[in-house]
Amino acid sequence: MNRQELIAQIQQKKSFLCIGLDIDLAKIPTHLLAEEDPIFEFNKQIIDATHHLAVSYKPNTAFYEAYGIKGWQALEKTIDYINTNYPELFTIADAKRGDIGNTSTMYAKAFLEDLNFDSVTVAPYMGSDSVEPFLAFENKNTILLALTSNKGGVDFQGLKTENEELYKKVLKTALTWKNSENLMFVVGATKAEYFEDIRKIVPNHFLLVPGVGAQGGNLHDVCKYGLTKDCGLLINSSRGIIYAGTNENFAQEAQKEALKLQQEMATILDSSW
Amino acid sequence: MNRQELIAQIQQKKSFLCIGLDIDLAKIPTHLLAEEDPIFEFNKQIIDATHHLAVSYKPNTAFYEAYGIKGWQALEKTIDYINTNYPELFTIADAKRGDIGNTSTMYAKAFLEDLNFDSVTVAPYMGSDSVEPFLAFENKNTILLALTSNKGGVDFQGLKTENEELYKKVLKTALTWKNSENLMFVVGATKAEYFEDIRKIVPNHFLLVPGVGAQGGNLHDVCKYGLTKDCGLLINSSRGIIYAGTNENFAQEAQKEALKLQQEMATILDSSW
Repeated sequence: MNRQELIAQIQQKKSFLCIGLDIDLAKIPTHLLAEEDPIFEFNKQIIDATHHLAVSYKPNTAFYEAYGIKGWQALEKTIDYINTNYPELFTIADAKRGDIGNTSTMYAKAFLEDLNFDSVTVAPYMGSDSVEPFLAFENKNTILLALTSNKGGVDFQGLKTENEELYKKVLKTALTWKNSENLMFVVGATKAEYFEDIRKIVPNHFLLVPGVGAQGGNLHDVCKYGLTKDCGLLINSSRGIIYAGTNENFAQEAQKEALKLQQEMATILDSSW
Repeated sequence: MNRQELIAQIQQKKSFLCIGLDIDLAKIPTHLLAEEDPIFEFNKQIIDATHHLAVSYKPNTAFYEAYGIKGWQALEKTIDYINTNYPELFTIADAKRGDIGNTSTMYAKAFLEDLNFDSVTVAPYMGSDSVEPFLAFENKNTILLALTSNKGGVDFQGLKTENEELYKKVLKTALTWKNSENLMFVVGATKAEYFEDIRKIVPNHFLLVPGVGAQGGNLHDVCKYGLTKDCGLLINSSRGIIYAGTNENFAQEAQKEALKLQQEMATILDSSW
Protein backbone atom coordinates (compact mmCIF):
# COMPACT_ATOMS: atom_id res chain seq x y z
CA MET A 1 0.00 0.00 0.00
CA ASN A 2 1.34 3.45 -0.79
CA ARG A 3 1.03 6.63 1.22
CA GLN A 4 -1.74 8.10 -0.95
CA GLU A 5 -3.93 5.04 -0.47
CA LEU A 6 -3.51 5.28 3.28
CA ILE A 7 -4.37 8.99 3.25
CA ALA A 8 -7.42 8.38 1.05
CA GLN A 9 -8.65 5.76 3.50
CA ILE A 10 -8.19 8.15 6.45
CA GLN A 11 -10.19 10.83 4.63
CA GLN A 12 -12.95 8.45 3.66
CA LYS A 13 -13.37 6.82 7.08
CA LYS A 14 -12.57 9.98 9.05
CA SER A 15 -10.43 7.83 11.24
CA PHE A 16 -6.75 7.33 11.91
CA LEU A 17 -7.33 4.52 14.34
CA CYS A 18 -5.01 1.54 14.50
CA ILE A 19 -6.25 -1.44 16.50
CA GLY A 20 -3.58 -3.48 18.24
CA LEU A 21 -4.27 -7.21 18.12
CA ASP A 22 -2.34 -8.17 21.27
CA ILE A 23 -3.84 -11.55 21.98
CA ASP A 24 -3.82 -13.10 25.42
CA LEU A 25 -5.76 -16.36 25.77
CA ALA A 26 -6.32 -15.51 29.44
CA LYS A 27 -8.24 -12.39 28.42
CA ILE A 28 -10.37 -13.50 25.48
CA PRO A 29 -13.98 -14.64 26.09
CA THR A 30 -13.97 -18.20 27.41
CA HIS A 31 -16.56 -19.48 24.91
CA LEU A 32 -13.93 -18.99 22.16
CA LEU A 33 -11.52 -21.41 23.80
CA ALA A 34 -13.59 -24.31 22.42
CA GLU A 35 -12.86 -23.16 18.84
CA GLU A 36 -10.16 -24.91 16.84
CA ASP A 37 -8.18 -21.66 16.63
CA PRO A 38 -9.41 -19.32 19.38
CA ILE A 39 -6.88 -16.59 18.55
CA PHE A 40 -7.88 -16.35 14.90
CA GLU A 41 -11.60 -16.58 15.74
CA PHE A 42 -11.20 -13.70 18.21
CA ASN A 43 -9.27 -11.57 15.71
CA LYS A 44 -11.73 -12.32 12.91
CA GLN A 45 -14.72 -11.20 14.95
CA ILE A 46 -12.91 -8.07 16.20
CA ILE A 47 -11.88 -7.14 12.66
CA ASP A 48 -15.34 -7.81 11.20
CA ALA A 49 -16.90 -5.59 13.86
CA THR A 50 -14.44 -2.69 13.61
CA HIS A 51 -12.95 -2.60 10.08
CA HIS A 52 -15.12 0.38 9.04
CA LEU A 53 -13.92 2.41 12.04
CA ALA A 54 -10.19 1.71 11.85
CA VAL A 55 -7.66 2.19 9.06
CA SER A 56 -5.01 -0.12 10.43
CA TYR A 57 -4.47 -3.32 12.45
CA LYS A 58 -1.32 -4.11 14.35
CA PRO A 59 -0.69 -7.61 15.70
CA ASN A 60 2.25 -7.57 18.11
CA THR A 61 4.24 -10.67 17.20
CA ALA A 62 5.23 -11.36 20.84
CA PHE A 63 1.70 -12.43 21.67
CA TYR A 64 1.70 -14.94 18.80
CA GLU A 65 5.20 -16.30 19.35
CA ALA A 66 4.22 -16.95 22.95
CA TYR A 67 1.86 -19.65 21.61
CA GLY A 68 4.49 -21.28 19.40
CA ILE A 69 3.42 -22.83 16.12
CA LYS A 70 -0.28 -22.39 16.88
CA GLY A 71 0.34 -18.71 17.49
CA TRP A 72 2.30 -18.37 14.28
CA GLN A 73 -0.51 -20.09 12.36
CA ALA A 74 -3.04 -17.73 13.92
CA LEU A 75 -0.89 -14.76 12.84
CA GLU A 76 -0.74 -16.07 9.26
CA LYS A 77 -4.49 -16.66 9.16
CA THR A 78 -5.15 -13.19 10.59
CA ILE A 79 -3.04 -11.32 8.04
CA ASP A 80 -4.44 -13.48 5.21
CA TYR A 81 -7.97 -12.76 6.41
CA ILE A 82 -7.35 -9.01 6.38
CA ASN A 83 -5.60 -9.03 3.00
CA THR A 84 -8.38 -11.11 1.43
CA ASN A 85 -11.42 -9.43 2.93
CA TYR A 86 -10.29 -5.89 3.70
CA PRO A 87 -7.33 -5.17 1.42
CA GLU A 88 -7.78 -1.43 1.99
CA LEU A 89 -6.54 -1.77 5.60
CA PHE A 90 -2.97 -0.80 6.47
CA THR A 91 -1.37 -3.72 8.29
CA ILE A 92 1.53 -3.45 10.74
CA ALA A 93 3.63 -6.35 12.01
CA ASP A 94 4.68 -4.96 15.38
CA ALA A 95 7.84 -7.03 15.56
CA LYS A 96 10.53 -4.48 16.61
CA ARG A 97 13.18 -6.41 14.68
CA GLY A 98 16.67 -5.28 13.66
CA ASP A 99 19.85 -7.25 12.95
CA ILE A 100 22.90 -7.10 10.70
CA GLY A 101 22.23 -6.62 6.98
CA ASN A 102 21.72 -10.13 5.62
CA THR A 103 19.69 -11.09 8.70
CA SER A 104 17.47 -8.02 8.51
CA THR A 105 16.79 -9.01 4.91
CA MET A 106 15.41 -12.33 6.18
CA TYR A 107 13.10 -10.55 8.63
CA ALA A 108 11.99 -8.10 5.95
CA LYS A 109 11.19 -10.97 3.60
CA ALA A 110 9.27 -12.82 6.31
CA PHE A 111 7.01 -9.91 7.24
CA LEU A 112 6.74 -7.80 4.07
CA GLU A 113 6.83 -10.49 1.40
CA ASP A 114 5.75 -13.88 2.78
CA LEU A 115 3.22 -12.69 5.36
CA ASN A 116 2.55 -9.67 3.14
CA PHE A 117 2.17 -7.03 5.84
CA ASP A 118 2.18 -3.41 4.63
CA SER A 119 4.73 -2.47 7.26
CA VAL A 120 6.88 -3.68 10.13
CA THR A 121 8.27 -1.97 13.24
CA VAL A 122 12.06 -1.92 13.52
CA ALA A 123 14.49 -1.03 16.35
CA PRO A 124 17.25 1.45 15.42
CA TYR A 125 20.07 0.43 17.80
CA MET A 126 22.11 -1.37 15.12
CA GLY A 127 21.99 1.54 12.67
CA SER A 128 21.75 2.01 8.91
CA ASP A 129 22.47 -1.43 7.52
CA SER A 130 20.06 -3.02 9.99
CA VAL A 131 17.18 -0.87 8.71
CA GLU A 132 17.89 -0.31 5.01
CA PRO A 133 17.02 -3.93 4.02
CA PHE A 134 13.46 -3.19 5.19
CA LEU A 135 13.36 0.14 3.36
CA ALA A 136 14.24 -1.54 0.08
CA PHE A 137 10.76 -3.04 -0.30
CA GLU A 138 8.60 -0.98 -2.64
CA ASN A 139 5.20 0.21 -1.46
CA LYS A 140 5.99 -1.06 2.02
CA ASN A 141 6.71 0.97 5.13
CA THR A 142 9.27 0.58 7.88
CA ILE A 143 8.20 2.02 11.21
CA LEU A 144 11.27 2.92 13.22
CA LEU A 145 11.20 3.15 17.02
CA ALA A 146 12.01 6.75 17.88
CA LEU A 147 10.51 7.76 21.21
CA THR A 148 8.65 5.00 23.02
CA SER A 149 5.96 5.43 25.65
CA ASN A 150 7.23 3.02 28.29
CA LYS A 151 8.94 3.96 31.54
CA GLY A 152 12.36 2.76 30.37
CA GLY A 153 12.07 4.76 27.16
CA VAL A 154 14.00 7.64 28.73
CA ASP A 155 16.92 5.40 29.78
CA PHE A 156 18.68 5.82 26.44
CA GLN A 157 16.32 7.68 24.10
CA GLY A 158 16.47 10.73 26.36
CA LEU A 159 20.26 10.84 26.62
CA LYS A 160 21.93 13.94 25.23
CA THR A 161 24.12 13.09 22.27
CA GLU A 162 26.13 15.91 20.78
CA ASN A 163 23.70 18.43 22.28
CA GLU A 164 20.47 16.68 21.39
CA GLU A 165 18.58 13.67 22.65
CA LEU A 166 19.28 10.31 21.08
CA TYR A 167 15.76 9.97 19.68
CA LYS A 168 16.22 13.22 17.71
CA LYS A 169 19.50 11.91 16.36
CA VAL A 170 17.70 8.70 15.36
CA LEU A 171 15.07 10.72 13.48
CA LYS A 172 17.64 12.91 11.71
CA THR A 173 19.99 10.07 10.83
CA ALA A 174 17.17 7.86 9.55
CA LEU A 175 16.22 10.59 7.08
CA THR A 176 19.66 10.19 5.45
CA TRP A 177 19.17 6.46 4.79
CA LYS A 178 18.39 5.07 1.36
CA ASN A 179 14.63 4.94 0.59
CA SER A 180 13.87 6.96 3.73
CA GLU A 181 10.57 7.97 2.12
CA ASN A 182 9.37 4.51 3.19
CA LEU A 183 9.85 5.39 6.86
CA MET A 184 7.31 6.01 9.56
CA PHE A 185 8.22 6.46 13.23
CA VAL A 186 6.94 5.14 16.54
CA VAL A 187 6.39 8.04 18.94
CA GLY A 188 4.77 7.35 22.30
CA ALA A 189 1.65 9.31 23.20
CA THR A 190 2.60 9.77 26.83
CA LYS A 191 5.00 12.46 25.70
CA ALA A 192 2.65 14.71 23.74
CA GLU A 193 4.75 17.80 24.45
CA TYR A 194 7.60 16.30 22.42
CA PHE A 195 5.54 16.15 19.22
CA GLU A 196 6.21 19.83 18.50
CA ASP A 197 9.97 19.25 18.33
CA ILE A 198 9.55 15.99 16.44
CA ARG A 199 7.45 17.67 13.74
CA LYS A 200 10.30 20.13 13.16
CA ILE A 201 12.50 17.18 12.20
CA VAL A 202 9.94 15.01 10.38
CA PRO A 203 7.16 17.40 9.23
CA ASN A 204 5.48 14.94 6.85
CA HIS A 205 6.24 11.36 7.88
CA PHE A 206 3.51 9.28 9.44
CA LEU A 207 3.89 8.65 13.17
CA LEU A 208 2.52 5.49 14.78
CA VAL A 209 1.42 6.49 18.26
CA PRO A 210 0.85 3.83 20.91
CA GLY A 211 0.01 4.74 24.45
CA VAL A 212 -3.38 6.44 24.00
CA GLY A 213 -5.78 5.03 26.54
CA ALA A 214 -4.32 2.24 28.68
CA GLN A 215 -0.90 3.92 28.85
CA GLY A 216 -2.34 7.34 29.68
CA GLY A 217 -1.78 9.40 26.54
CA ASN A 218 -4.29 12.04 25.44
CA LEU A 219 -5.59 12.04 21.86
CA HIS A 220 -6.17 15.80 21.64
CA ASP A 221 -2.72 16.69 22.97
CA VAL A 222 -1.09 14.40 20.44
CA CYS A 223 -3.14 15.81 17.56
CA LYS A 224 -2.50 19.41 18.59
CA TYR A 225 1.20 19.02 17.78
CA GLY A 226 1.35 15.89 15.65
CA LEU A 227 -1.35 16.32 12.99
CA THR A 228 -0.28 17.29 9.47
CA LYS A 229 -2.24 18.28 6.37
CA ASP A 230 -2.31 14.57 5.41
CA CYS A 231 -3.18 13.57 8.98
CA GLY A 232 0.25 11.97 9.43
CA LEU A 233 -0.82 10.04 12.51
CA LEU A 234 -1.90 6.49 13.25
CA ILE A 235 -3.16 6.24 16.81
CA ASN A 236 -3.02 2.75 18.25
CA SER A 237 -5.29 1.34 20.90
CA SER A 238 -5.09 -2.32 21.86
CA ARG A 239 -6.47 -3.45 25.21
CA GLY A 240 -8.93 -0.57 25.50
CA ILE A 241 -10.75 -1.83 22.42
CA ILE A 242 -10.24 -5.55 22.06
CA TYR A 243 -10.85 -6.43 25.71
CA ALA A 244 -13.75 -4.00 26.24
CA GLY A 245 -16.11 -6.96 26.54
CA THR A 246 -15.61 -10.38 28.06
CA ASN A 247 -18.59 -12.44 26.87
CA GLU A 248 -20.38 -13.38 23.62
CA ASN A 249 -20.88 -9.68 22.88
CA PHE A 250 -17.16 -8.88 22.94
CA ALA A 251 -17.02 -7.83 19.28
CA GLN A 252 -19.87 -5.37 19.67
CA GLU A 253 -18.26 -3.98 22.83
CA ALA A 254 -15.02 -3.55 20.89
CA GLN A 255 -16.98 -1.80 18.14
CA LYS A 256 -18.46 0.65 20.68
CA GLU A 257 -14.99 1.60 21.95
CA ALA A 258 -13.60 1.89 18.42
CA LEU A 259 -16.57 4.08 17.46
CA LYS A 260 -15.90 6.44 20.38
CA LEU A 261 -12.32 6.94 19.23
CA GLN A 262 -13.32 7.23 15.57
CA GLN A 263 -15.88 9.92 16.41
CA GLU A 264 -13.28 11.89 18.36
CA MET A 265 -10.95 11.56 15.39
CA ALA A 266 -13.66 12.69 12.92
CA THR A 267 -14.24 15.82 15.00
CA ILE A 268 -10.53 16.55 15.07
CA LEU A 269 -10.15 15.97 11.31
CA ASP A 270 -13.24 18.06 10.46
CA SER A 271 -11.90 21.01 12.41
CA SER A 272 -8.42 20.78 10.90
CA TRP A 273 -9.25 20.15 7.22
CA MET B 1 21.91 -23.47 33.06
CA ASN B 2 23.84 -21.40 35.55
CA ARG B 3 27.14 -19.62 35.08
CA GLN B 4 29.20 -22.28 36.88
CA GLU B 5 27.91 -25.03 34.60
CA LEU B 6 28.86 -22.99 31.55
CA ILE B 7 32.34 -22.33 32.93
CA ALA B 8 32.82 -26.02 33.80
CA GLN B 9 31.90 -26.96 30.23
CA ILE B 10 34.39 -24.43 28.81
CA GLN B 11 37.13 -25.83 31.04
CA GLN B 12 36.33 -29.44 30.15
CA LYS B 13 36.08 -28.92 26.38
CA LYS B 14 38.79 -26.24 26.24
CA SER B 15 36.49 -24.34 23.97
CA PHE B 16 34.40 -21.21 24.09
CA LEU B 17 33.00 -21.71 20.64
CA CYS B 18 29.41 -20.84 19.83
CA ILE B 19 28.09 -22.12 16.51
CA GLY B 20 25.51 -19.93 14.82
CA LEU B 21 22.75 -21.93 13.15
CA ASP B 22 21.78 -19.37 10.50
CA ILE B 23 19.96 -21.57 8.05
CA ASP B 24 19.56 -20.65 4.41
CA LEU B 25 17.94 -23.30 2.21
CA ALA B 26 19.86 -21.89 -0.75
CA LYS B 27 23.13 -22.76 0.98
CA ILE B 28 22.55 -26.19 2.52
CA PRO B 29 23.58 -29.32 0.57
CA THR B 30 20.99 -30.07 -2.09
CA HIS B 31 20.59 -33.73 -1.12
CA LEU B 32 18.96 -32.58 2.13
CA LEU B 33 16.16 -30.77 0.30
CA ALA B 34 14.47 -34.15 -0.27
CA GLU B 35 14.12 -34.65 3.51
CA GLU B 36 10.80 -33.93 5.21
CA ASP B 37 12.43 -31.17 7.27
CA PRO B 38 15.70 -30.14 5.58
CA ILE B 39 16.45 -27.40 8.11
CA PHE B 40 16.21 -29.69 11.11
CA GLU B 41 18.11 -32.48 9.34
CA PHE B 42 20.92 -30.03 8.52
CA ASN B 43 21.06 -28.70 12.10
CA LYS B 44 20.96 -32.21 13.59
CA GLN B 45 23.93 -33.38 11.54
CA ILE B 46 25.92 -30.20 12.25
CA ILE B 47 25.24 -30.51 15.99
CA ASP B 48 26.07 -34.24 16.08
CA ALA B 49 29.38 -33.58 14.33
CA THR B 50 30.46 -30.56 16.41
CA HIS B 51 28.87 -30.79 19.89
CA HIS B 52 32.14 -31.92 21.51
CA LEU B 53 33.99 -28.91 20.07
CA ALA B 54 31.48 -26.17 20.89
CA VAL B 55 29.88 -25.09 24.16
CA SER B 56 26.99 -23.18 22.67
CA TYR B 57 24.60 -23.07 19.70
CA LYS B 58 22.84 -19.96 18.50
CA PRO B 59 20.00 -20.17 15.99
CA ASN B 60 19.17 -16.70 14.67
CA THR B 61 15.37 -16.57 14.65
CA ALA B 62 15.25 -14.47 11.46
CA PHE B 63 16.36 -17.43 9.37
CA TYR B 64 13.55 -19.59 10.78
CA GLU B 65 10.81 -16.96 10.62
CA ALA B 66 11.69 -16.49 6.96
CA TYR B 67 10.31 -20.00 6.37
CA GLY B 68 7.08 -19.37 8.25
CA ILE B 69 5.48 -22.22 10.16
CA LYS B 70 7.91 -24.79 8.75
CA GLY B 71 10.78 -22.66 9.96
CA TRP B 72 9.26 -22.28 13.39
CA GLN B 73 8.76 -26.06 13.59
CA ALA B 74 12.38 -26.61 12.62
CA LEU B 75 13.46 -24.21 15.37
CA GLU B 76 11.38 -26.09 17.95
CA LYS B 77 12.77 -29.44 16.83
CA THR B 78 16.33 -28.09 16.91
CA ILE B 79 16.16 -26.75 20.46
CA ASP B 80 14.35 -29.90 21.62
CA TYR B 81 17.03 -32.03 20.01
CA ILE B 82 19.80 -30.15 21.79
CA ASN B 83 18.04 -30.13 25.16
CA THR B 84 17.32 -33.87 24.93
CA ASN B 85 20.63 -35.11 23.57
CA TYR B 86 23.18 -32.54 24.71
CA PRO B 87 21.67 -30.80 27.75
CA GLU B 88 25.15 -29.53 28.73
CA LEU B 89 25.16 -27.11 25.76
CA PHE B 90 24.39 -23.45 26.32
CA THR B 91 21.63 -22.43 23.92
CA ILE B 92 21.04 -18.89 22.65
CA ALA B 93 17.92 -17.71 20.85
CA ASP B 94 19.39 -14.88 18.77
CA ALA B 95 16.15 -12.96 18.54
CA LYS B 96 17.16 -9.38 19.42
CA ARG B 97 13.74 -8.71 20.94
CA GLY B 98 12.66 -5.84 23.18
CA ASP B 99 9.26 -4.24 23.77
CA ILE B 100 7.25 -2.63 26.57
CA GLY B 101 7.03 -4.58 29.83
CA ASN B 102 4.04 -6.89 29.38
CA THR B 103 5.05 -7.60 25.80
CA SER B 104 8.66 -8.38 26.70
CA THR B 105 7.26 -10.84 29.22
CA MET B 106 5.54 -12.68 26.36
CA TYR B 107 8.81 -12.86 24.39
CA ALA B 108 10.70 -14.04 27.49
CA LYS B 109 8.12 -16.75 28.09
CA ALA B 110 8.27 -17.87 24.45
CA PHE B 111 12.04 -18.25 24.33
CA LEU B 112 13.11 -19.05 27.90
CA GLU B 113 10.15 -21.11 29.08
CA ASP B 114 8.25 -22.66 26.17
CA LEU B 115 11.17 -23.22 23.80
CA ASN B 116 13.44 -23.61 26.84
CA PHE B 117 16.51 -21.79 25.53
CA ASP B 118 19.16 -20.95 28.13
CA SER B 119 19.35 -17.37 26.90
CA VAL B 120 17.99 -14.82 24.46
CA THR B 121 19.50 -11.74 22.83
CA VAL B 122 17.70 -8.45 23.58
CA ALA B 123 17.94 -4.92 22.12
CA PRO B 124 18.36 -2.11 24.68
CA TYR B 125 16.72 0.85 22.93
CA MET B 126 13.51 0.72 24.99
CA GLY B 127 15.35 0.64 28.32
CA SER B 128 14.89 -0.97 31.72
CA ASP B 129 11.31 -2.23 31.65
CA SER B 130 11.86 -3.75 28.21
CA VAL B 131 14.75 -5.90 29.52
CA GLU B 132 13.89 -6.67 33.15
CA PRO B 133 11.10 -9.15 32.23
CA PHE B 134 13.79 -11.32 30.62
CA LEU B 135 16.13 -10.95 33.60
CA ALA B 136 13.45 -12.23 35.95
CA PHE B 137 13.88 -15.83 34.75
CA GLU B 138 16.07 -17.85 37.11
CA ASN B 139 19.07 -19.71 35.72
CA LYS B 140 18.50 -18.04 32.36
CA ASN B 141 20.62 -15.38 30.73
CA THR B 142 19.72 -12.24 28.83
CA ILE B 143 22.30 -11.17 26.27
CA LEU B 144 22.02 -7.44 25.71
CA LEU B 145 23.23 -5.80 22.49
CA ALA B 146 26.00 -3.42 23.48
CA LEU B 147 28.46 -2.87 20.64
CA THR B 148 27.59 -4.65 17.41
CA SER B 149 29.97 -5.57 14.63
CA ASN B 150 28.00 -4.30 11.63
CA LYS B 151 28.76 -1.16 9.65
CA GLY B 152 25.76 0.73 11.02
CA GLY B 153 26.74 -0.13 14.59
CA VAL B 154 28.54 3.19 14.96
CA ASP B 155 25.48 5.20 13.83
CA PHE B 156 24.09 5.39 17.36
CA GLN B 157 26.19 3.14 19.58
CA GLY B 158 29.21 5.36 18.97
CA LEU B 159 27.46 8.63 19.75
CA LYS B 160 28.81 10.56 22.70
CA THR B 161 26.23 10.82 25.47
CA GLU B 162 27.16 12.85 28.51
CA ASN B 163 30.86 12.41 27.68
CA GLU B 164 30.82 8.72 26.86
CA GLU B 165 29.62 6.62 23.98
CA LEU B 166 26.09 5.27 24.07
CA TYR B 167 27.22 1.65 24.25
CA LYS B 168 29.16 2.38 27.45
CA LYS B 169 26.09 4.03 28.91
CA VAL B 170 24.09 0.93 27.94
CA LEU B 171 26.59 -1.29 29.78
CA LYS B 172 26.64 0.89 32.91
CA THR B 173 22.89 1.40 33.04
CA ALA B 174 22.17 -2.30 32.50
CA LEU B 175 24.26 -3.12 35.57
CA THR B 176 21.77 -1.13 37.68
CA TRP B 177 18.78 -3.20 36.53
CA LYS B 178 17.14 -5.82 38.72
CA ASN B 179 18.74 -9.29 38.37
CA SER B 180 21.60 -7.83 36.33
CA GLU B 181 23.67 -10.88 37.31
CA ASN B 182 21.69 -12.70 34.61
CA LEU B 183 23.11 -10.40 31.91
CA MET B 184 25.61 -11.12 29.19
CA PHE B 185 26.47 -8.64 26.42
CA VAL B 186 26.88 -8.79 22.65
CA VAL B 187 30.17 -7.13 21.67
CA GLY B 188 31.27 -7.29 18.05
CA ALA B 189 34.70 -8.73 17.31
CA THR B 190 35.51 -6.25 14.58
CA LYS B 191 36.24 -3.74 17.31
CA ALA B 192 38.80 -5.67 19.39
CA GLU B 193 40.46 -2.50 20.63
CA TYR B 194 37.25 -1.57 22.46
CA PHE B 195 37.35 -4.68 24.66
CA GLU B 196 39.84 -3.07 27.03
CA ASP B 197 37.43 -0.25 27.88
CA ILE B 198 34.48 -2.62 28.03
CA ARG B 199 36.23 -4.88 30.54
CA LYS B 200 36.67 -1.86 32.84
CA ILE B 201 32.89 -1.55 32.97
CA VAL B 202 31.92 -5.25 32.96
CA PRO B 203 34.97 -7.14 34.27
CA ASN B 204 33.21 -10.45 34.86
CA HIS B 205 30.13 -10.71 32.65
CA PHE B 206 30.20 -13.09 29.71
CA LEU B 207 30.44 -11.43 26.29
CA LEU B 208 28.93 -13.04 23.20
CA VAL B 209 31.22 -12.10 20.32
CA PRO B 210 30.00 -12.41 16.74
CA GLY B 211 32.09 -11.25 13.83
CA VAL B 212 35.07 -13.63 14.09
CA GLY B 213 35.79 -15.06 10.65
CA ALA B 214 33.30 -13.99 7.97
CA GLN B 215 32.99 -10.47 9.43
CA GLY B 216 36.76 -10.03 9.79
CA GLY B 217 37.37 -10.12 13.53
CA ASN B 218 40.51 -11.68 14.99
CA LEU B 219 40.25 -14.27 17.78
CA HIS B 220 43.58 -13.45 19.43
CA ASP B 221 42.92 -9.71 19.53
CA VAL B 222 39.56 -10.28 21.17
CA CYS B 223 41.02 -12.68 23.74
CA LYS B 224 43.92 -10.36 24.55
CA TYR B 225 41.54 -7.81 26.03
CA GLY B 226 38.33 -9.76 26.58
CA LEU B 227 39.37 -12.95 28.38
CA THR B 228 38.71 -13.21 32.14
CA LYS B 229 39.73 -15.78 34.75
CA ASP B 230 36.47 -17.63 33.99
CA CYS B 231 37.00 -17.19 30.23
CA GLY B 232 34.07 -14.78 30.03
CA LEU B 233 33.78 -15.07 26.26
CA LEU B 234 31.60 -16.96 23.82
CA ILE B 235 32.94 -16.58 20.29
CA ASN B 236 30.37 -17.15 17.61
CA SER B 237 31.04 -18.43 14.12
CA SER B 238 28.17 -19.21 11.78
CA ARG B 239 28.79 -19.34 8.03
CA GLY B 240 32.49 -20.16 8.39
CA ILE B 241 31.57 -23.45 10.06
CA ILE B 242 28.14 -24.58 8.91
CA TYR B 243 28.66 -23.84 5.20
CA ALA B 244 32.26 -25.11 5.05
CA GLY B 245 31.11 -28.04 2.92
CA THR B 246 28.43 -28.24 0.27
CA ASN B 247 27.93 -31.96 -0.35
CA GLU B 248 27.22 -35.17 1.62
CA ASN B 249 30.32 -34.52 3.73
CA PHE B 250 29.11 -31.14 4.96
CA ALA B 251 28.98 -32.19 8.63
CA GLN B 252 32.57 -33.47 8.60
CA GLU B 253 33.69 -30.26 6.87
CA ALA B 254 31.93 -28.26 9.56
CA GLN B 255 33.63 -30.41 12.18
CA LYS B 256 37.04 -29.61 10.68
CA GLU B 257 36.41 -25.87 10.84
CA ALA B 258 35.07 -26.13 14.38
CA LEU B 259 38.10 -28.17 15.39
CA LYS B 260 40.46 -25.49 14.04
CA LEU B 261 38.76 -22.84 16.16
CA GLN B 262 38.57 -25.12 19.21
CA GLN B 263 42.29 -25.85 18.98
CA GLU B 264 43.11 -22.15 18.79
CA MET B 265 40.91 -21.63 21.82
CA ALA B 266 42.55 -24.48 23.74
CA THR B 267 45.96 -22.91 23.14
CA ILE B 268 44.71 -19.54 24.33
CA LEU B 269 43.08 -21.04 27.44
CA ASP B 270 46.13 -23.17 28.27
CA SER B 271 48.39 -20.14 28.17
CA SER B 272 46.06 -18.01 30.29
CA TRP B 273 45.00 -20.49 32.97
